[in-house]
This record gives sequence, C-alpha cells and structure tokens, in this order.
Amino acid sequence: MTLPLDAITVLELGQVYLGPYCGLLLARLGAEVIKIEPLGGEPVRQRGDGEETKAFSFLNAGKKSVCLDLKTSEGKQLFLDLLVTADVVIENYAVGTMARLGLDYDVLQSVNPRIILGSGTGYGSTGPYRRYKSLDPNVQALTGIMSVTGFADNPPVKTGPAVVDFSAGVHLMAGILAALLQRTTTGRGQHVEVAMQDAILPTLTSNLAGLLDGGPEMPERTGNRHGGLALCPYNVYPTSDGWVSILAINDVQWRALAQATGDPMLSSDASFATNASRVKRMDEVDSRIAAWTETMTADQVNALLQPPGVPCAPVRTLASLFADEHVIERRMLRSIEANGTTHWVFGSPILFDGAICADPAPPPVLGGDTRTILAHRLGISNERCTVLHQSLVVHVDGLPISKSVDSGALDRE
Amino acid sequence: MTLPLDAITVLELGQVYLGPYCGLLLARLGAEVIKIEPLGGEPVRQRGDGEETKAFSFLNAGKKSVCLDLKTSEGKQLFLDLLVTADVVIENYAVGTMARLGLDYDVLQSVNPRIILGSGTGYGSTGPYRRYKSLDPNVQALTGIMSVTGFADNPPVKTGPAVVDFSAGVHLMAGILAALLQRTTTGRGQHVEVAMQDAILPTLTSNLAGLLDGGPEMPERTGNRHGGLALCPYNVYPTSDGWVSILAINDVQWRALAQATGDPMLSSDASFATNASRVKRMDEVDSRIAAWTETMTADQVNALLQPPGVPCAPVRTLASLFADEHVIERRMLRSIEANGTTHWVFGSPILFDGAICADPAPPPVLGGDTRTILAHRLGISNERCTVLHQSLVVHVDGLPISKSVDSGALDRE
Repeated sequence: MTLPLDAITVLELGQVYLGPYCGLLLARLGAEVIKIEPLGGEPVRQRGDGEETKAFSFLNAGKKSVCLDLKTSEGKQLFLDLLVTADVVIENYAVGTMARLGLDYDVLQSVNPRIILGSGTGYGSTGPYRRYKSLDPNVQALTGIMSVTGFADNPPVKTGPAVVDFSAGVHLMAGILAALLQRTTTGRGQHVEVAMQDAILPTLTSNLAGLLDGGPEMPERTGNRHGGLALCPYNVYPTSDGWVSILAINDVQWRALAQATGDPMLSSDASFATNASRVKRMDEVDSRIAAWTETMTADQVNALLQPPGVPCAPVRTLASLFADEHVIERRMLRSIEANGTTHWVFGSPILFDGAICADPAPPPVLGGDTRTILAHRLGISNERCTVLHQSLVVHVDGLPISKSVDSGALDRE
Repeated sequence: MTLPLDAITVLELGQVYLGPYCGLLLARLGAEVIKIEPLGGEPVRQRGDGEETKAFSFLNAGKKSVCLDLKTSEGKQLFLDLLVTADVVIENYAVGTMARLGLDYDVLQSVNPRIILGSGTGYGSTGPYRRYKSLDPNVQALTGIMSVTGFADNPPVKTGPAVVDFSAGVHLMAGILAALLQRTTTGRGQHVEVAMQDAILPTLTSNLAGLLDGGPEMPERTGNRHGGLALCPYNVYPTSDGWVSILAINDVQWRALAQATGDPMLSSDASFATNASRVKRMDEVDSRIAAWTETMTADQVNALLQPPGVPCAPVRTLASLFADEHVIERRMLRSIEANGTTHWVFGSPILFDGAICADPAPPPVLGGDTRTILAHRLGISNERCTVLHQSLVVHVDGLPISKSVDSGALDRE
C-alpha cells in the first residue's frame, strides 16, 4: 500500500502533546518522523523514576529518535545538516525559542528552501498574550471553555481531555499538508503557524451563538444541555445503573423518542410538538424523559432508542474503553507487544479507501536511531558518532551516559 | 497573495458542524467551497422563525450556496455535472446515505477519477456501532469523555464546547489535503474517512495513561486537576473575583510559583521539592496556593505569575471574549457588516508566513449562487435555471418559493 506521505521526512522538535500529536498524524500517513530529542529526552518521555511514560508511548509509537543538543554548536550543525535531507520541521517551543537557538525560519530556509516549518504556539506570535505561558488548562481558562463547562451551580471546570493541545496539533498537521501541496507548484516551503487559542475557538460555536441570540441572561454553563439552550430534549438522563445521553434534533427524532417513552403528554400534547415549544418547557420535558429512563439500565434505553433512530448513547467509563467491542474493532486504541512490554498506542483517525494506515511500531528508545540516521543521512561513521556522544553533543542508546549530562530541555507551549 | 488551495473547488454536502467546519478550513486556505444545500437549506441555517442562525454564519461565511434536491434525478445529474468541475466532495450524512442517493464513491470516481470524497461519520463505516446515531454528546458519552469531565462528586458532564464535531472536521480536512497531495503523483482521488470517535480518542491521552498507571483506584473525574493526577500543582484556584488556572510542569516553574506565594513551607520544605512528593500531598499544596490566590483578583495573580514564567491564566467568561484585546488582535473571532447586518465569523486558525488567510465574505444566502454557478460551470441558461426552480429541482434566491417544497433534509452524523 502506498501512503500519501511515504516520501516525506519530518524532523519533530515536538514536546508533550501539541507537536508530538502533529508528528503522530504525519507518521500514520506514511512520513518518516524523526524526533530530535534533547539528551535527557523530551519532557514527557520519562517519569521521575526513569520509567517510560504511557503518554510517551501513545504519542510517539512509530517514530524514530535522534538525540542531540541543539544548544551546542556541533549539535545545531548536525540538525542543519539533517534539515537538508528533510521536508518538514515541527516545533512547539515557547515563542522566541527557535530564534534564540539561531533556528528561525529564515535560517532554516537559507539551508533548505523547500523546508516547511510548522510552529505550534499557545496564543500565537502576535497579540498581547503572545509571551504568556500557555498549557492546555490555561488556554481553556482564557478562552471561556472552563466557563461553559460543567453545571451552573458548580465552579467552572476544564474538559477532562486535553482538547486544546490536540486541536492545535491536528490543525498544525493540516497546515503542513497544505504547505506540502503548495510546494508542488512553487518549489518552496513556508512557515505555518497555529495557535492553541485560535484552533479551539470554533468549538464554541453553539455557545457563542447562544450568547449572541440569548444575550446576557444566557447562563454560561449549561451542564449537559445544549450550549446555546436552543435544542430540547438534549441532556444526560439517569438510569438504574448510570446515565444515558439522549437528544432529538428534528421532529422525526422527537416523535420516535416521545413514542418510546410511552408518556401520552410527550407524544400527543401539542405544547411539546415543536422544538421551540419544548425549549420553553425544558425542565418538564427533561423530567418526563428522566422518569422513563430511570426505570431501566442505560443499555436498555439505548437498545430501545437506536432502532427508531433517536440519537442516544450510554455514558461509559473510561476504563470500559479497553474492552469495548467497537473500540477494539476500529483499532484506533490498540496495544503492541515488544520485548515483553505492552505498549498502548493510537492508530490513525484518518483512513483512506477504508484501509487502516501505517501500523505503528513501538515507541523509539531514547537515541535509538541516532547512529543509524546520522550514518545513513549524513555519512557519519560509528567512531565519529561515539566521539559526539562522549562530548555530549548527541546521545546514542546503549552507550554509557556521562553523569554531567544536562537534560537540554527547552521551554514549550 | 497566493493561498495553498486557490485552484481547488469543493462541493460541500456538510451539515451542522463536522462537514461545514471542514469546508470552512478549506475555504480559508483559498478553496472555492460551494455548499450544495437541500431546497430548505442545511439544517443549521434557519431557526424555527425563519431567521438565519448565528451558528450558520460562523461556519459558512466565505462559501457559496447552490441549492438542489439530490433526491430528484435531475438534481442528482446536476450534482454529477458539477462534480466533473470539482476536486473534493465533503459529506457528513449518516452512514449509507450516499449509497442510497446513488452517490457512493465508485459512482463519483467513475464520473471524475480525480475526485476526492471526504466522509465524516460518528463511529465509522465499520464496527458494531456504525449505525448508531452519533451527535457530539452521544460520542462524548460513549468514549468516556463525559465520565472524565467534571468533579468526582458530581454527575458526568459533557465538555461545554462541541469538541468531537470539530475535531472530526479538522481531521477530515487534513485527510483531504493528504489526498490532494497524493493526487499530484497518482492523478487519482481517494475516499477519505474520519470517524468522530477515532478523532477524539487521542485527546484522552493523559486520562488513559493515568488509568494504565494508577489502576482501578484512579478516579475518572478529577475536576480541574491533571487527568492522570500525575502533576501538582495543576488546578483552578479561587480569587477574590473569580478563579485562576495555575500549574507547574517542571521544577523551575514550581520554584517561581512557590516564591511568589511567599509561603515558606512551599518554597523551602524539602517535602514539596519534587513533583512526585507534591503529588502525594496534593490537597495540602492546593490549599496553600488557594490561601494565597484568594487574597487577590485573578488578574493580580496573573500579573505576578507571568513574569517569572509560571503557566497561569484568569478564568474568563465566554461573554468577555468579544472585548478581549488579544482575541480582537488575532482576528480569529471577528464581525463583518453586510446589508445592515452584523455577521460574526471565524478567521483561519492556520496561518502562513505570519499572514492572515482568505478574509471571509458574509455567509451566502440560500441558493444565492445557484444561477451563477450553474451558468459558469455547466452553461445552464437563466431560463433553464428558472424552469428547474419551478419544478423544485433547484432553488434560486429571489424567485418565489412553491408552497409544496420539501426541505429535502437528509440524516447526518
């Protein structure tokens, strides 16, 4: 099978989630993704006790690892030499870090005019917040996401998943693909930038629209109800064993739901016939549906509502995902056995002609590809590579580590 | 300015969020995006009272609108004729709808071998849940997102923003770009598929990793704490006027925070010196930080923590976004005045060489481009177009509407 990015080489300076997720997606579409890691590994690689983290495995399986210290002149030169052989660089350092390293886009392009630089930032490289530290929850705070998540009588709360980091990561990946496409006609690369704040704002469409329509009396947090309180029913309802998500976005779905409940008020009273009328009596609609759902398990409700086409789903625990028959069949969340270790990794959410994309290899060990990549791409001998390791310019897996090694970590978004 | 997709034509059969967001992103990168709408408009276009929704404006500004009924044989033929002039089709109907319309990918490719079809689904076209109705909250329920969002002593709750819909939309856009890139070498299109469930699972990395590390005693919902309870401090803290998000992901940030608080226990006691030790005393760390933050406003805390580089942000309301100086300068959320109406629209989260992408035009009126597009692309005369309108095959803005018109709406994901 030929994958879209089979001929593409990516140097990933990614850290934690944003940059590594961008690299992961490119790897699953066939690119050779080489993580350029500081001598101590990227921040998420190791826990305090030195063991590899599960998060590292999830986001880096299928990539290669070359360890070199960009803060040394020799390490920087090795990076620039690799750059000549590459198509894309990904970075999500704090704004200004690439320039401080002497690696801003002008420098990269002078070395390789076809190189594409993808930069992920928190708030962008312009605007008053551009220097703010910007981890996922900070951006959720500043964009109003916390303010619209949770129940009205509880404090604001972040989303459980790190949606801001990952949204920026996939937007950056898309921007890089657009630049690769444009390069087929221009022959030149570009600097692509995605800010976490910009990339997450569109997800607030319902909430922003509700605010513009409803004005200041619209509550910010609507719990499990529609973000703009513009649809009813739209909620999570109690069952005998948990919760179930049910909504109806048109009259066909509403009538099917009303009939399933067996509640004559819902199925025949004209005052519930239109969405507009139901929105005005939201509490009553919700309590009548809850009176029905709480007599059954979530799976029983789901089994009754799927056949007539009512949007419905049991609220599952995270722990149940690993045994979920649909999750298993889709293979997006899967495990790989290697050297007696089970690695949990992600497949590709982007599929072509129904096929699964590149099957991920286990995550790379730190500096596991330093020797091979430097040899194959730059013609550097084993002996020279060992000297570079001993002088703390690179790290080669398997060679003894000098005690004086600095982690080489850099600030990130 | 030349944009990456200046030469690309997209026929968007998108509905609500997933498909339209995919189309929006392609439009901002320069593509001509033609919404193919049913005669009654796509579902999100009009509220019950006939007024255009704010959500429609956000997601469709800068596109064109051609109205035609795909369920009529003439309407379908017009679509296939347009297909010859296009590069990409986007759809997010329920699984099986394109086949029922006689428009599955084999048919599209027989008409135009270079066409790329991007399909957004809820759970994918394979697996036991493939026929499930799958709106954003349903997928949040089934993937464990609700279970990990909110506070442990409250019910599960969805994320305020519709993160599942939008995540799938941008992944689909990226897949389409990859297929466009591959087409430059193969000369052929592909069918790209993205399922909402697959596209959102990676955002759960911290939570899944925490579960694998921590085992069954790990709580599913951790409020504003780290999803895997693996970092401390990492929380939202009370202030005199609201809340502030603060975290520290390394010792440099921790020491800067500890010093800012002026709490000698935090800054000098060895039992708080490492993340591992702080994680064990999370409640105490959090209460000591809260004792400091609640003496000030959120902006005061932020002003003290940004200079020494501690990740921090005040928790803003959604309503405050419209007046936020950074949001205004970035222009991702902006307004356009047209014909006396203010349209709120999104810019592009993907920027090239520091420049803003295609400035969006106002959202198209229903069928506002039917006449022009059919004339320019298919050579259909004004007279013929009027006849097609009268026989309910197309809708042309400005012509009287027959009372018997069916909305032509189709199921969607």
